Amino acid sequence: MKQTLGVARLLITCPDRSGIVAKVTTFLQAQGANITDLDQHATDPQGGTFFMRLEFQTDRLKLTAKALEQRFTDEIAKAFSMDWQIHYTEKAKRMAIFVSKYDHALLEILWRWSRQELAFTIPLIISNHPDLKEAAQHFDLPFYCLPVTPKTKLSVQEKMLDLCDEMKVEGIILARYMQILTNAFVKHYANQIINIHHSFLPAFVGANPYQQAYDKGVKLIGATAHYVTEELDMGPIIAQDVVRVSHRLNVSQLRELGQYVERMTLARAVKAHVEDRIIVDGNKTIVFDLQ
Amino acid sequence: MKQTLGVARLLITCPDRSGIVAKVTTFLQAQGANITDLDQHATDPQGGTFFMRLEFQTDRLKLTAKALEQRFTDEIAKAFSMDWQIHYTEKAKRMAIFVSKYDHALLEILWRWSRQELAFTIPLIISNHPDLKEAAQHFDLPFYCLPVTPKTKLSVQEKMLDLCDEMKVEGIILARYMQILTNAFVKHYANQIINIHHSFLPAFVGANPYQQAYDKGVKLIGATAHYVTEELDMGPIIAQDVVRVSHRLNVSQLRELGQYVERMTLARAVKAHVEDRIIVDGNKTIVFDLQ
Amino acid sequence: MKQTLGVARLLITCPDRSGIVAKVTTFLQAQGANITDLDQHATDPQGGTFFMRLEFQTDRLKLTAKALEQRFTDEIAKAFSMDWQIHYTEKAKRMAIFVSKYDHALLEILWRWSRQELAFTIPLIISNHPDLKEAAQHFDLPFYCLPVTPKTKLSVQEKMLDLCDEMKVEGIILARYMQILTNAFVKHYANQIINIHHSFLPAFVGANPYQQAYDKGVKLIGATAHYVTEELDMGPIIAQDVVRVSHRLNVSQLRELGQYVERMTLARAVKAHVEDRIIVDGNKTIVFDLQ
Amino acid sequence: MKQTLGVARLLITCPDRSGIVAKVTTFLQAQGANITDLDQHATDPQGGTFFMRLEFQTDRLKLTAKALEQRFTDEIAKAFSMDWQIHYTEKAKRMAIFVSKYDHALLEILWRWSRQELAFTIPLIISNHPDLKEAAQHFDLPFYCLPVTPKTKLSVQEKMLDLCDEMKVEGIILARYMQILTNAFVKHYANQIINIHHSFLPAFVGANPYQQAYDKGVKLIGATAHYVTEELDMGPIIAQDVVRVSHRLNVSQLRELGQYVERMTLARAVKAHVEDRIIVDGNKTIVFDLQ
Repeated sequence: MKQTLGVARLLITCPDRSGIVAKVTTFLQAQGANITDLDQHATDPQGGTFFMRLEFQTDRLKLTAKALEQRFTDEIAKAFSMDWQIHYTEKAKRMAIFVSKYDHALLEILWRWSRQELAFTIPLIISNHPDLKEAAQHFDLPFYCLPVTPKTKLSVQEKMLDLCDEMKVEGIILARYMQILTNAFVKHYANQIINIHHSFLPAFVGANPYQQAYDKGVKLIGATAHYVTEELDMGPIIAQDVVRVSHRLNVSQLRELGQYVERMTLARAVKAHVEDRIIVDGNKTIVFDLQ
Repeated sequence: MKQTLGVARLLITCPDRSGIVAKVTTFLQAQGANITDLDQHATDPQGGTFFMRLEFQTDRLKLTAKALEQRFTDEIAKAFSMDWQIHYTEKAKRMAIFVSKYDHALLEILWRWSRQELAFTIPLIISNHPDLKEAAQHFDLPFYCLPVTPKTKLSVQEKMLDLCDEMKVEGIILARYMQILTNAFVKHYANQIINIHHSFLPAFVGANPYQQAYDKGVKLIGATAHYVTEELDMGPIIAQDVVRVSHRLNVSQLRELGQYVERMTLARAVKAHVEDRIIVDGNKTIVFDLQ
Repeated sequence: MKQTLGVARLLITCPDRSGIVAKVTTFLQAQGANITDLDQHATDPQGGTFFMRLEFQTDRLKLTAKALEQRFTDEIAKAFSMDWQIHYTEKAKRMAIFVSKYDHALLEILWRWSRQELAFTIPLIISNHPDLKEAAQHFDLPFYCLPVTPKTKLSVQEKMLDLCDEMKVEGIILARYMQILTNAFVKHYANQIINIHHSFLPAFVGANPYQQAYDKGVKLIGATAHYVTEELDMGPIIAQDVVRVSHRLNVSQLRELGQYVERMTLARAVKAHVEDRIIVDGNKTIVFDLQ
Repeated sequence: MKQTLGVARLLITCPDRSGIVAKVTTFLQAQGANITDLDQHATDPQGGTFFMRLEFQTDRLKLTAKALEQRFTDEIAKAFSMDWQIHYTEKAKRMAIFVSKYDHALLEILWRWSRQELAFTIPLIISNHPDLKEAAQHFDLPFYCLPVTPKTKLSVQEKMLDLCDEMKVEGIILARYMQILTNAFVKHYANQIINIHHSFLPAFVGANPYQQAYDKGVKLIGATAHYVTEELDMGPIIAQDVVRVSHRLNVSQLRELGQYVERMTLARAVKAHVEDRIIVDGNKTIVFDLQ
């Protein structure tokens, strides 16, 4: 998607009260903001939580972004006890990508990124294996191979965290990175790390889930993209999808379809993230999506 | 869906200008309206058309509905050249259903209606055949059998129009009514008549489309629900869906799947209509849907 | 689907060996059977399991069904260590339906059944509540209300089993019957009891799964139809489906969509069962379906 | 999918008669063929057309492929008036790819090909523009840029045909090649040229279909893959798919989703083609697919 220059996105969460929309939109208009998109959601008509996403053009703002944010804090956000964030499309998000050996999720992301379907900056790609170095190079992206052993796991992740800090990384895409991130990592990038994993009904624990899915004769194979929290694979869900399968598919054909749905679901989640369409509320997401 | 008592839905179309949302929401709040849902769409950041759907609770309104509407007209709508409508859930829409012989679309609608999934009033069912009389009676609904011949077509439709007027019908669901409505009908209920028809890629004209679909070996079979306009089957699209098919299905099995997708798509369109989620803009719709 | 008279369906499971298809089809042809459909599946090119479904016309058979079955046993089935079954469309399956209070699954089945989309015989409907008596009567079907208390659970199920025996019931559709069947029941109707239940990713245990799904912010809601085994909700899967959901839906709207996907998935599973399209292999199914 | 070595695929079309399956399978077994997969379809129980796809292992064949084919012709095919073809996985299909400027369809195909999800040989890529040269080189594939003007159209296509002949090309993938192939081309590669095009309900003719789809407010956007015949975009359909869209998407976002569904649908069609899963019957296909 072509990004329009000079667009800001404001995300708000607060206790629901009468008059929030009126106050926020009147304030923005008074500052010269032209609101082009507004999506609002309240969990309950009475006393629930209020969520809102606004897009506005910044070209005719009467004050600097910094001043706008200060006045918004003082005049609006405090009074309504708001949690809020503002993002500017001029300042693309800096997202690192972590991978291991599988290339399907990485290539789908890089390819959409190179076509400007996904608008963000990739300061670096990190892997615990050298296999995808060439893929990274093809897109002219810095690739760091940082192998991990049980012994070095902690120190390597510290190094990765330093590297991310140094490169001003704001979020991370786990494109099938087969290591569990330390709590230090997860805390540092709270609700900024996107993971993709296969998912099945029923859920299969343990090794070789596609063999288990085959043995169980499931009729659907799915994938779930979510933010990473300390509890493994249980963070807020961003996107989910499935494909229909039949007994005619063997284990490797199931895996092939699984990888297809993984890369599509991850791409969808990354798109929502970099376009600031997601509000995390506790352990769930509000995704103001287009489709 | 259980309807909350005391909810109004406001639908607005107007030329896009800065400040509309602020003005409307500030106005409503000042009258005591508690906005619980707001969905807004603009076709273009610069000089496009602005569409908005608002839900608000009416329990604490400081003035009557009539007075509110008058003040809204005077203070807001005129200034912004708005096309607008307001609906109150307390006053359920009165929708007639027209059928012929096929029962699938009728039964899906009646059944969801009887479960309160679709909230509206059915003053009468009209058919040009007696076949579905028993179905109507099962749901305690008045059923009028008005057969049509080429000669009586015009006079019968006049009679149907009178009947609808008399019963204060506000809109019509064509649940596979196999007669073409006269322009008089279409004009009288502009953007209030919902039709469902099968649809295929490529489109098949002429008799027996399922035989044509079979002969062509299509891989998808679909249905389109739309508002009826004078141009046959070309009115604003409300909902569309498809099902996957294979060469293993014969013509009657294709038709069976086609009827399944027809009833689902019609139900989806009727739900959007009776919940006031649709704005018609020229020959297209804006559907502020939930799913 | 209109049933052709004089059709037999043969389902075969056996260790895979060279020459099975040739032997079976040559045998059938020699007896005057006209094979109209053949679907075959082998789990592994080398030493796996072989599954086959054949449809053939019986009008020109040179011997009685009984004699055909005897010769098939002697000349083919023993040599290949086959597990096999044969069904005749002239002899419709006798399927009881068990329900509680929810009507969505029952009505979808009865309605398709009354339209001949599902070809089977319904000797009786049993419920532990009186609520759906009228629905059964509308379709002229015997309805037995057999309430259950913790104390009477076993004796009531014994009575139900007797009733089913008496009515020559061959299989059971659990259309949201909210009681767990005793092992006696499950054994008596092994792989002949079809259940439907909602399903989510992740799985939610305990009460009110739709509230849990809402709290978790899932993006898909699904349903799984399966044969009932002694292990609760873990029997061989017959059909699965999902619908996409968003944060805009409240708990009751999620339930409404859940019930939609339940009734569609159950109908699909029942269709596959009564058309003899399913072979159960251990804890999985081979479904030779059309779509 | 990993290809097993030593597999043959036999595709048969003939007038339906009793005994075909028995004859074919008995013949193959006698020659030492181990049938691992058999899928059969008849259009009508009485006097229709019979279609069959067989996979068998060739490792223990008692005669050469050539001798097998001769005997099959003499002993079976003639008697049943069969149209038939046999393919060996050892001998991968040689498929050229034609492109213009859009890269989405090409990259999806090349990427799946490089992962061995699609098993075929790519002797060359031809384009009328230089834009995708680098993409071809990245996969080490010969790229020929053959620009076309209205004047040179015929002579360039002659040259392309010569080039394909020279490179022993057996089929062609049109991955968004924006030129109409001459009848000479279409005849030379009858039912061997796969095209992908967007498709909508209703169909939009003329320039900029995405703008038309936006103006019409369609709720689905689709793609159709088909074999190329002399009648433009009307050849036998191989695969079709759609994605759901809403009014929230602008024209370029619709195009982005359209390109997604195009590349997925083309990949699906190419997979069916190179795995010999398709029989063309007049202007329709029988696709013996897995999913």
